[in-house]
Order: sequence, then structure tokens, then C-alpha cells
Amino acid sequence: MTKNNSSEKPVILITNDDSYSAAGIRKLISLMRPLGKVVVVASEHVMSGMGHAITIKTPLRMKRVALETDYEEYVCNGTPVDCVKLGTQVVLKSKPDLVVSGINHGSNASINVIYSGTMAAVLEACIDGIPAIGFSLLEYSMDADFSHVDEYVTKITRQVLKNGLPSGVCLNVNIPAVSVQKPKGIKVCRQSHARWVEEFDSRMDPRGTDYHWLTGQFENDDLDEDTDQFALENNFVSIVPVQYDLTAYHAINSLKEWDF
Amino acid sequence: MTKNNSSEKPVILITNDDSYSAAGIRKLISLMRPLGKVVVVASEHVMSGMGHAITIKTPLRMKRVALETDYEEYVCNGTPVDCVKLGTQVVLKSKPDLVVSGINHGSNASINVIYSGTMAAVLEACIDGIPAIGFSLLEYSMDADFSHVDEYVTKITRQVLKNGLPSGVCLNVNIPAVSVQKPKGIKVCRQSHARWVEEFDSRMDPRGTDYHWLTGQFENDDLDEDTDQFALENNFVSIVPVQYDLTAYHAINSLKEWDF
Repeated sequence: MTKNNSSEKPVILITNDDSYSAAGIRKLISLMRPLGKVVVVASEHVMSGMGHAITIKTPLRMKRVALETDYEEYVCNGTPVDCVKLGTQVVLKSKPDLVVSGINHGSNASINVIYSGTMAAVLEACIDGIPAIGFSLLEYSMDADFSHVDEYVTKITRQVLKNGLPSGVCLNVNIPAVSVQKPKGIKVCRQSHARWVEEFDSRMDPRGTDYHWLTGQFENDDLDEDTDQFALENNFVSIVPVQYDLTAYHAINSLKEWDF
Repeated sequence: MTKNNSSEKPVILITNDDSYSAAGIRKLISLMRPLGKVVVVASEHVMSGMGHAITIKTPLRMKRVALETDYEEYVCNGTPVDCVKLGTQVVLKSKPDLVVSGINHGSNASINVIYSGTMAAVLEACIDGIPAIGFSLLEYSMDADFSHVDEYVTKITRQVLKNGLPSGVCLNVNIPAVSVQKPKGIKVCRQSHARWVEEFDSRMDPRGTDYHWLTGQFENDDLDEDTDQFALENNFVSIVPVQYDLTAYHAINSLKEWDF
């Protein structure tokens, strides 16, 4: 467990993938400020669907904004993973006690974790040995209502600051969209084995050349009751512990029997 | 296991993240053509470090090239993950029997798997239930020497076509750079727990504004002998079975004890 044993306020680095101006990160900043010394490094533009992309072909630019506040906030031209790297290496020049990412506008439950810039930032912090949490709301709209999230975001963050996280593990937290009924509670789950079934919307441009918009349907055949998807559909907040070790350990022995 | 039981030649979809013109994919195409009906969908530009990025803000363009050949080859403006989606949905309109990606110019062993566009394409196929293999060479140069890889790429591909792969599992194959000594063989391994320690190269542009180039040192403190990194350092070809389920199952029970 990586715990924060300092008596000083913990340093909390905040990022997201919906850009610095999104309602989700503004909410997250407001919830983190009472919990620690906040530093924000976020992308200037929307970086949804960027996965674990990093910027290596173009130089990164970063500038401080929100100069009138009691915390530091920077925007950059990089991806969410770049934001974590810039935040720790260039801004803080040391590891923060916690990295939080989000609150994403839209689900990062189930297979979405793989495509998510929000969760890539969290995994990047985890690789670096920093406790990290990604928060997402099941509401894609940029006008999403975050009014019901405070209790869950604060409670989970306090627990991570208190307990730390096991080495190599970070958290993927998803919160149901606001509804008449308050979420029933918090459930620790596994990632549901669902997928996006793509259907390209193929069109012809005015010059007669075709182009394709990526669209898709989310399909979940994994109906077990221990998944994040099940928890969310039953109005619970889901927490999946996530790791960056992608080894399929259960497959190692059978592969060793192959005739190489 | 997903096996190819057809008596026809298996359909093999090929992609990469170094662009269609890279020596690595040309080599891979030449090695796959004797093994099946080859279809190539690759990016027009280099997509290294794109991770599992997908293109959702701009339309995808794709055009057929290599019209004089006995196989179909397309280039597009998308990421490696987009290439797999376009290849299956728009070009083939059905699932291929195998997706192969690479041969990457540079290692995708250890933590590199997370940042890799090559392996993102492989994971994407795996999510879709298609057996998939990523091949990488431990030589970053665009002039890399691929003369020693044939035996390993062909042997591993034949085994996957014959045996299939367990559900939810794909392969990350890394091959040592050419040297005086031939690789000693093939080892099935786990992902080494290493990381990149970043050092930004920060500079001032002629207008007096600073910018940052991402650079880094690869640091491996994981010295166990069952890792891909150990195998490669000892001149073996490494195979890591990889999964897209990121759940840290070992952490579920301890998290359930937290006070939510």
C-alpha cells in the first residue's frame, strides 16, 4: 500500500479528457480543494477516445491559467497521459500524493476503460507508483448534471488518501446519471466483458469521395452480477480495481505446451 | 479456443502503427501471403504512441493502393484501432480468421504494451473475438534489419492458425534485434513490471515561449526470470499472452472491506 503519511495537506493532481472547461473537471476541482493542495493540468481541447496516446511527434505547450485562484491550473496541447507526465515532471517536479481524473462525461465502465483518456491518465499515474482514481458519470452530455456526485467522489477519495492502494492497482469509478432515485450505494466489481459493435456511417462528400464516421452499439453479453455494468444498471456506484499488467496469466501454461 | 476449421485459406487482416510504407509491415505482408488470403489496412502516417486511440471527431478516409497485387491493400487516415474496425466492417464486412499487427520498429515488451498502437490493434481484434498477434522487433530504426525474423513469425502464426487462442487472449511477440548470434528460441513470459522515467527536454522558442519534448529512460526493476524483458535480454523471442480485462482481481476483496 502506498499511503500518505505526511501531516501536511496531500498534493492532488487533477486532469481529465474532456478539456479544462468541462463541467466534470470543474466539479472535481471543487470537490478536491477541501481535501488537499490541488494542481490542475488539463488539455485545452477535448481528448475523448485518445486511449493511452502520448505526444512524441510535436512539442508540448503548457500555460498557466486561473491566476486569481489559490491553486495552480495549467492547460496544455497534450493528451491526458501527457498531462500526468507534465504535471509530475514539469509543474510539481515530484510525485503528487494522488492523481484524480474526470469527472468524465460518459461511462468508462466495462470495455470503455480501454478507449478512455480519463482512465489512461489514471493508469499512467499508477505505473508511476502514484495512487490514482478515475471518476466518470453515465451521462455524455456536456450539460450533464453532477449535482448528486459529491458524496461518492469525496468518500472514495478520502478512503484512498487514508488507505492507499495496492501496488500496481488504480480505481475506475463510475456513477449513475442523476435520476429520481439516489444511488443505492457503492459496489466493488470486476470489468464487464462487453464490447462496441461498430457500424460505420459511410457517406459521399460533395467531390464524390467516400468517408466514414465511426458509430457503434454497446453490447453486453456478460450478465453476471459481479460486474460494473450490472452494478450501474441497478443504480449503484461501481468501483473496479484496475491494473496495467495485461498478462493473461491463465493462458501461460497452455501456450508453453505449443510446438515452437 | 477460436479455431479456423475452414478448408479454405484463412483470411488474415494486417495492420501496424508505423504506416503502410514501413519495412516492418512490408516484411509481415510477405510472410503472411503464403499462409492465407491477405488484406492490409494501414495508416497513411506514423501512429506510434497512439495507444488505444480511436477517431471520433473527424471522418475516416480510406483508399485502396497496390492495385497490381493479388491481395487488397488500403491506407487510411485513422489510428491502428481504426484500421482494425475499418478492415473488418468496411473492407471485409466479416471477421477475418486472424489479425496480425506490426512488425513494429521498436520494442513493445514490458510496459510498452500500454502505449503501443501495434498492440492496441491486436487488443481491438481480441475484443471482437478474432485471434490476433502483435509482432515487434527490438530495433527502432526505420532501416531496421528484419532478415532473421521469418522463422519465428511464421512458426507462431501457424500455431495460432492451428490452435486458436483462448477467449479474451491475444499475443504480444517481441523479437531481439539482429545480432551475430541467432535467437536461442521462443519463450512464453509475463509482462515485466518496468516503466519509463520521463525527463522533458524543455526549450524556449524564438518568441520566448517554452515548449517541452517528451523523452525518457526505460527502467526495469523487475529482475525475475519469467518476464519478457529477461527473455529478450537473453536473446530469446518473447511471447506474452495479453488480455483486455484490466480488473485487478486480487484487489477486489481488500477493497470490499473499505468503509463506504
